[in-house]
Amino acid sequence: MEKNFKLTREFINQIEDLIEAKDEQGSMALISELHPADIAEIFDELNTDEAKFLYMLLDGEKSADVLIELEEDVRERFLLATPSEIIAKEYINEMDSDDAADIIGDLPEEKQEEILSHIEDIEHVGDIADLLNYDEDTAGGLMGKEYVAVHEDWDVSKSVQEIRRQAEDIDELYYVYVVNKDNYLIGFISLKDLILSDDKQVVKTLSKSDVISVRTETPAEEVAVIMEKYNLVTLPVVDNIGRLLGRITIDDVVDVMREEAEKDYQLISGITSDVESSDKIFQLTKARLPWLLIGLLGGILGAQVISQYESDLAIYPEMAFFIPLIAAMGGNVGIQSSSIIVQSLANNSLGIESTARKLLKELSVGFMNGFICSSILLIYNIFMSDTTALTITVSISLFTVIIFASVFGTLIPLTLNRFKVDPALATGPFITTVNDILGLLLYLMIGRYMYMFFEGVNI
Amino acid sequence: MEKNFKLTREFINQIEDLIEAKDEQGSMALISELHPADIAEIFDELNTDEAKFLYMLLDGEKSADVLIELEEDVRERFLLATPSEIIAKEYINEMDSDDAADIIGDLPEEKQEEILSHIEDIEHVGDIADLLNYDEDTAGGLMGKEYVAVHEDWDVSKSVQEIRRQAEDIDELYYVYVVNKDNYLIGFISLKDLILSDDKQVVKTLSKSDVISVRTETPAEEVAVIMEKYNLVTLPVVDNIGRLLGRITIDDVVDVMREEAEKDYQLISGITSDVESSDKIFQLTKARLPWLLIGLLGGILGAQVISQYESDLAIYPEMAFFIPLIAAMGGNVGIQSSSIIVQSLANNSLGIESTARKLLKELSVGFMNGFICSSILLIYNIFMSDTTALTITVSISLFTVIIFASVFGTLIPLTLNRFKVDPALATGPFITTVNDILGLLLYLMIGRYMYMFFEGVNI
Repeated sequence: MEKNFKLTREFINQIEDLIEAKDEQGSMALISELHPADIAEIFDELNTDEAKFLYMLLDGEKSADVLIELEEDVRERFLLATPSEIIAKEYINEMDSDDAADIIGDLPEEKQEEILSHIEDIEHVGDIADLLNYDEDTAGGLMGKEYVAVHEDWDVSKSVQEIRRQAEDIDELYYVYVVNKDNYLIGFISLKDLILSDDKQVVKTLSKSDVISVRTETPAEEVAVIMEKYNLVTLPVVDNIGRLLGRITIDDVVDVMREEAEKDYQLISGITSDVESSDKIFQLTKARLPWLLIGLLGGILGAQVISQYESDLAIYPEMAFFIPLIAAMGGNVGIQSSSIIVQSLANNSLGIESTARKLLKELSVGFMNGFICSSILLIYNIFMSDTTALTITVSISLFTVIIFASVFGTLIPLTLNRFKVDPALATGPFITTVNDILGLLLYLMIGRYMYMFFEGVNI
Repeated sequence: MEKNFKLTREFINQIEDLIEAKDEQGSMALISELHPADIAEIFDELNTDEAKFLYMLLDGEKSADVLIELEEDVRERFLLATPSEIIAKEYINEMDSDDAADIIGDLPEEKQEEILSHIEDIEHVGDIADLLNYDEDTAGGLMGKEYVAVHEDWDVSKSVQEIRRQAEDIDELYYVYVVNKDNYLIGFISLKDLILSDDKQVVKTLSKSDVISVRTETPAEEVAVIMEKYNLVTLPVVDNIGRLLGRITIDDVVDVMREEAEKDYQLISGITSDVESSDKIFQLTKARLPWLLIGLLGGILGAQVISQYESDLAIYPEMAFFIPLIAAMGGNVGIQSSSIIVQSLANNSLGIESTARKLLKELSVGFMNGFICSSILLIYNIFMSDTTALTITVSISLFTVIIFASVFGTLIPLTLNRFKVDPALATGPFITTVNDILGLLLYLMIGRYMYMFFEGVNI
């Protein structure tokens, strides 16, 4: 079967009609064959009551899978409207520990405890409670307890027995970890190698010892970089002294990668939180207003700067012509420089150059771009402008602004990163606005001196 | 072992010294324990001769793995300096077909044929030649031929035998595909289920029939969305009528996701090609100049627009104060609106609203943000500006510009997408510049009428 479910407005209307008619069979006929991720997409479009009706029709395992796939706000609304006992017994029971911890972790503390108290499987509730202790942006917060570990001295046949015992609740199992008697992680075996090996072979001889692992406190971003770099499907997590605690699967890390990329993209596009075009007007407005307000403030400061030169402008109004050009170019160059650093940091390709070397290089790039752009502008103005002072002012200012913004745009994200602040902030509104205003100031200052020099104007 | 190899300038210096001294043992001691991905990082920092020296020390399988991990330009330089026969026998022989096709595909056609002619394994060379036919941005270009398929009527024990036969050359094997006698894909089994099943059980009864597959021509971006949405580790690829042709692994798709995100990020930050801060000055300049030139052109057009209003500015130079504010806000709002659409398209969360509804929503958002921003500016100017005409002009213009840019910023990427053009282009320099200039024009036009009305100025 090729998968090509595509959610449409018609489909939603159809299912809403069935729900209103309380047609359980009809509703189930529509959704029962769908993948949980597709059902979750449908739920995201329904209101809480409609979703609840549909949800009660699903069996335990499927409803747990759908719950995992729901958007956070939809899920939270739904869970808060559902008794803790049902959440515990119908849904959490069926989930991997990491998914369960993620979902419970978003709820109010009281509700969390209520749900945990209703889970009967003591091992499962212990695992979830353990995982709730880790920061969600670390390896501990990403890992699940659903791994299979075998003892280095066992043979293949005993290992398979153990897999049989441990793996019953595990959906996805690709590697088996090898530990010593104190549970220290010492290697791994792929299921493929287990299948292809003789029953009597000892695990130690099959185990690959170059196992890559992280600690619980490793940041999620670093986990993503490691799994991407080394092409891993699962990554074991160990404690400070190397004992195996859990494993991270690639699907969770793909989500981390997506979120990281989105966060950087949102910052550079001036949006403050995770919104989608399908969100509500209020959310969309709220996510966009902060940058606009900073931009507004920047614009007002710019107006203040220009107003200091009002008398100049009254005498040579043509100075105003190039105000947008200078402001825009400063902002553009700054964003370019910052974004290269931000992206290199994000995909771990910053290289081994020192900051001084990077700056020197950036200066050269700024010099070349500045030279080319100012020369073009110079030629344009030689033909188009009557005022030598303006011609010279515009080109010198542009050159200076481009060099300045290049350096500034490189230094800021590197500095932020050194102080463990998200370097992507440098691509946000504040720095851009500062670049705009400084460019403006430079332009008007240089202009005043040039007019004094070339035209003998004295202000 | 915890993995924490971190490349440093010192390490590179050390290895360069060893290479210069032709110290094979010393060099190997430094790198032999490292992961291929780490060795590739080292190679990226060396020149071709140094890399070649080191490369010859690695054994076949490791050198193949390193080759796969190298940056494209470094790899191409290296391969062009290496005899085709060595490439074929030492490296390509050891690679999965998809990696081999990716690497060969980047080379000149003549070199490709030379390499293929030196591969002795007929099946392998056939697989690679097949894969070279697919566009690299499609499922066909991503897939490899290294899958294991079992017949639906076989039992577990025969399947394991078949895995033993087929899986020898396959590093990563997590699922076995189930086909009928005509090679139609009808299901899959996880290795875990195979291990846990009785030897005599028939594959058909174990097989999960809700297998998700794509066709060879499915675009790479869509493959990424599918694997992410359904949390897949491998994805089978079929031909037009459903016959199994190959499989895509998640690590290749992670790379696609990263590239997609980077492409969008580069467009919005005004960079035209894939550069990193460690690239050469010339590359960095070249990647940044195009947007700066478009920005420059925009600035010149802006200057032309303002120059039409030179006489106005001579009379009321305070109009110039708010030129940067209006231009910047138009650009900002446009980018915000476009980027939300671009991101929603990228992660497939555009929802099921019609374009008309989206526009209506965007109008409302623009209305709210425009109202808030213009009101703040109005209050500011009531206290700070002496001229009623300016006060009114600035607020009305800002309001109009925000609404206009919102609509424009939403429509453009949706339109581009409908015509199968990358919607992220809407966040690039062209549209932003158009927004800037239109904002400027609006402002100056409204200003002229307001001054005529309030001050009786006649221009």
